[in-house]
Amino acid sequence: MTEGTSRIDAFSDGVFAIAITLLILEVRLQHAGVEGSSLWTGLVALWPYYFAFALSFFVILVTWIAHHDLMRLVRATSRPVQLANGCALLYVTFIPFPTAVLAANLGGTEIGTAVAFYCGTFVFGSGAFNLLVAMMARGQLFRPEVDAQTIGRIRRGYRITFMIYVAATLIALVAPWWALALNVAVRLHLLRIRYQLAPSVPRQEAQLTP
Amino acid sequence: MTEGTSRIDAFSDGVFAIAITLLILEVRLQHAGVEGSSLWTGLVALWPYYFAFALSFFVILVTWIAHHDLMRLVRATSRPVQLANGCALLYVTFIPFPTAVLAANLGGTEIGTAVAFYCGTFVFGSGAFNLLVAMMARGQLFRPEVDAQTIGRIRRGYRITFMIYVAATLIALVAPWWALALNVAVRLHLLRIRYQLAPSVPRQEAQLTP
Amino acid sequence: MTEGTSRIDAFSDGVFAIAITLLILEVRLQHAGVEGSSLWTGLVALWPYYFAFALSFFVILVTWIAHHDLMRLVRATSRPVQLANGCALLYVTFIPFPTAVLAANLGGTEIGTAVAFYCGTFVFGSGAFNLLVAMMARGQLFRPEVDAQTIGRIRRGYRITFMIYVAATLIALVAPWWALALNVAVRLHLLRIRYQLAPSVPRQEAQLTP
Amino acid sequence: MTEGTSRIDAFSDGVFAIAITLLILEVRLQHAGVEGSSLWTGLVALWPYYFAFALSFFVILVTWIAHHDLMRLVRATSRPVQLANGCALLYVTFIPFPTAVLAANLGGTEIGTAVAFYCGTFVFGSGAFNLLVAMMARGQLFRPEVDAQTIGRIRRGYRITFMIYVAATLIALVAPWWALALNVAVRLHLLRIRYQLAPSVPRQEAQLTP
Repeated sequence: MTEGTSRIDAFSDGVFAIAITLLILEVRLQHAGVEGSSLWTGLVALWPYYFAFALSFFVILVTWIAHHDLMRLVRATSRPVQLANGCALLYVTFIPFPTAVLAANLGGTEIGTAVAFYCGTFVFGSGAFNLLVAMMARGQLFRPEVDAQTIGRIRRGYRITFMIYVAATLIALVAPWWALALNVAVRLHLLRIRYQLAPSVPRQEAQLTP
Repeated sequence: MTEGTSRIDAFSDGVFAIAITLLILEVRLQHAGVEGSSLWTGLVALWPYYFAFALSFFVILVTWIAHHDLMRLVRATSRPVQLANGCALLYVTFIPFPTAVLAANLGGTEIGTAVAFYCGTFVFGSGAFNLLVAMMARGQLFRPEVDAQTIGRIRRGYRITFMIYVAATLIALVAPWWALALNVAVRLHLLRIRYQLAPSVPRQEAQLTP
Repeated sequence: MTEGTSRIDAFSDGVFAIAITLLILEVRLQHAGVEGSSLWTGLVALWPYYFAFALSFFVILVTWIAHHDLMRLVRATSRPVQLANGCALLYVTFIPFPTAVLAANLGGTEIGTAVAFYCGTFVFGSGAFNLLVAMMARGQLFRPEVDAQTIGRIRRGYRITFMIYVAATLIALVAPWWALALNVAVRLHLLRIRYQLAPSVPRQEAQLTP
Repeated sequence: MTEGTSRIDAFSDGVFAIAITLLILEVRLQHAGVEGSSLWTGLVALWPYYFAFALSFFVILVTWIAHHDLMRLVRATSRPVQLANGCALLYVTFIPFPTAVLAANLGGTEIGTAVAFYCGTFVFGSGAFNLLVAMMARGQLFRPEVDAQTIGRIRRGYRITFMIYVAATLIALVAPWWALALNVAVRLHLLRIRYQLAPSVPRQEAQLTP
């Protein structure tokens, strides 16, 4: 019923690499909406597209790091883990769409709706990662060196991250830029945690929650 | 004439990962057809695109799992297997197109034609997988531990799945939503079979037919 | 100066897998040019797109098989081989464009030009593969078990294939469908050669020339 | 805190392979801007798109070679290296956009702006690679056989390349074609350096700076 994780890792890596590269397809001169003016004006007017591109690139990169940190803790995979991982990948492949919505509305009057939709995607994604961790725990797939306390800490971390994304989605409706800043802050914090802890504590405590 | 399967596995994995990620390119705000209304209305009006995206994502994911379950049963590959596998990949790379047709017509009057075209794609795909299994059997490429009875059971499973897809295509013309439900049900059943059998029976009986 | 081929293989496999999957992006309902008629009419009117998609899929698949057959004969890679391989990959990534040109003109009056452009791409591609083999020979990178006679036979095969593609390009201007048929025939022949020879002769004689 | 580089290599390879293959999506007959004339005229009028496609293909290919040459010198990766590598990949995935801008303006009056934007992308990319090397040095991640003198030479090479890209960006505003020629020349020179040195000197001196 269980097997190693190399196959699922390779497939997931492919999906992450493709999703992160497809983001650029949304950055197009026609989107600048300043036909007739100089090329320079057009390139500058595309700033929301550069911003959304870089932001989603950062989001997918951190999610990829977190995904690998998590997969390294398990010794095997199971059908429920494959399906929960499928949900996580569904979220990753979906990101280019809310990114396009964000870019098209960042400078407009509907920025609140666009950012709420963007953040709502992360709520779904975080839910998928929570499901993935739960399926790993239920199938007792963690490596022997990952003790119960560590697993508890990881699951708590994922639950807190989920609630922060819910909060960011609500904040987006009234203060969209603050919601985006919160999203960046959470991910920078998660990256820093592991970096600071890693030298002195066992590997598995240095876990990232996307 | 024969060789290991790692090369063909890596190439196939790449094709699966790319096809599943390209699905999102069809989800676009312009497709909502509600210009002039609010962003929120547009995002809601895109529901057929989200539905088709998630459905085809699920289809490709299950096909990927089935493909790997199958490849793990053979010890080597041959030219006929490479070509039959090429037909299976042709089907996988084609999926984004019927998905786009489905999404564009899910809420319209031509839903019957669109769903029949979508299901017809699976008939072709299932035919390719039947051909792949037949080529594996003819070339005697199955691992020694896969006995004749098991091979017979796998081939029968693939043949039954093929006929279900033919039935779904015909049903689509009169009851498109039921045809889609049948497609989901077949795949959920296939996923469950392996999951239930796996702990107690040998690996190769837990076979999936896409 | 030399190194194993696993890196260059993995990168090349990725490019092949992506190019073959991007082909579907050209198959779009809007290309049918029959707005206002039924969905069924539109799907049928897309036949040149299905044809071009399947043809280029077959071309890239055979090229991938040939590329791997070739790379398996060398023990190491060098800078000139990396660059010649880059030319071969440039050809592979270019294929989606002539495929789109072919599909758009298959049923029109400019079919001759379109097929000549399509076949001309293969002349370039075959040139790149000839260069690749030449660089392998000049760098003495073939495995010890590949003797001089075999290398000579491989290079002759590649040269003949190059000339057939030149002929197909010229034929395309007067008899485009015959030029396409010649392209398919060449590749089927190459696939068959290896298949027939392989059981009785050493591996390296069963070489394919794309 | 550190780990092997195979994961980050595989992910980076995927991004390189996808970015280099997506370049072709910008080459489209509609871009020729000569509707109504013959297909042949249209195909010829697309020369700026072929040029930009081939140029950026060459750029990404050389960057990929350089990236691998660099990664082979380190024994492990760290969080700062992952993030600096993320910046380098952000640059790689961005390339299709300046390529499209270049192609659309190569024959027009705004060629200066377009080439400056194109070259400016390389300034950013080179900055990311300089950061990557700096993070490798700071984390003392180089293999033991890479001595301090070699590291110094590599870093100096990367700094000089950075300044050449800055110069090319400024030159682009007055002499765009010379700026493009300078870009090609730098990369050809870098490729040649390694090729000439490699047989006689240790591996790590044969370093490429993108």
